[in-house]
Amino acid sequence: MDNVQHEFEEIVKRIQSQNGVVGLIVVNNNGDPITSTFDDRSSVRHSEMMMKLADNAKRFIRNLDPSNELTVLQMGSKKREVVLAPGKDFIMMVLREQNHKSIMEIIGANSL
Amino acid sequence: MDNVQHEFEEIVKRIQSQNGVVGLIVVNNNGDPITSTFDDRSSVRHSEMMMKLADNAKRFIRNLDPSNELTVLQMGSKKREVVLAPGKDFIMMVLREQNHKSIMEIIGANSL
Repeated sequence: MDNVQHEFEEIVKRIQSQNGVVGLIVVNNNGDPITSTFDDRSSVRHSEMMMKLADNAKRFIRNLDPSNELTVLQMGSKKREVVLAPGKDFIMMVLREQNHKSIMEIIGANSL
Repeated sequence: MDNVQHEFEEIVKRIQSQNGVVGLIVVNNNGDPITSTFDDRSSVRHSEMMMKLADNAKRFIRNLDPSNELTVLQMGSKKREVVLAPGKDFIMMVLREQNHKSIMEIIGANSL
């Protein structure tokens, strides 16, 4: 296992161990889930949606300012908080319960 | 002016007066900008993108859980923070500089 992969797995473990985290998927640039807490069918379905939404959000940010770039997308909802963190080679989605410490701090968005 | 409109305008003023807020658009359900700090052409273009991204995010949340509903979407980027707050009759977008007090507190997402 190389250092990059080791660091990646440490980040995933750190996030999963946090209070309130109820789900996590990491999708590579081909749209394939590489780490997931969901069953196979849900993972594939969620991965497609993640790719589409992240693409849409990236275009949104670039359209506002072509020299700018999306770093993280956070959605509040009536039940859950959902965060999409697009990295260079993957997109990570974290689902967590509301009313916990900000997920932005936990995932250390800048390090992704 | 009825109470609802008055309250709405108070919210808009409150947001605009905050440190770091650099732009704001409110779009009605037909996709028309009803309040904007941008020029007409940019307002129309941004409004279209806002509708599309908000629709996409709403579908995303419902697909994860059909009984759930999007309340707010926040995007971090290298330069700006962008928040979309979908209301019953409109969508609001607020652009602000990074590193200020959380915009989620300012817009009081639950009151929209």
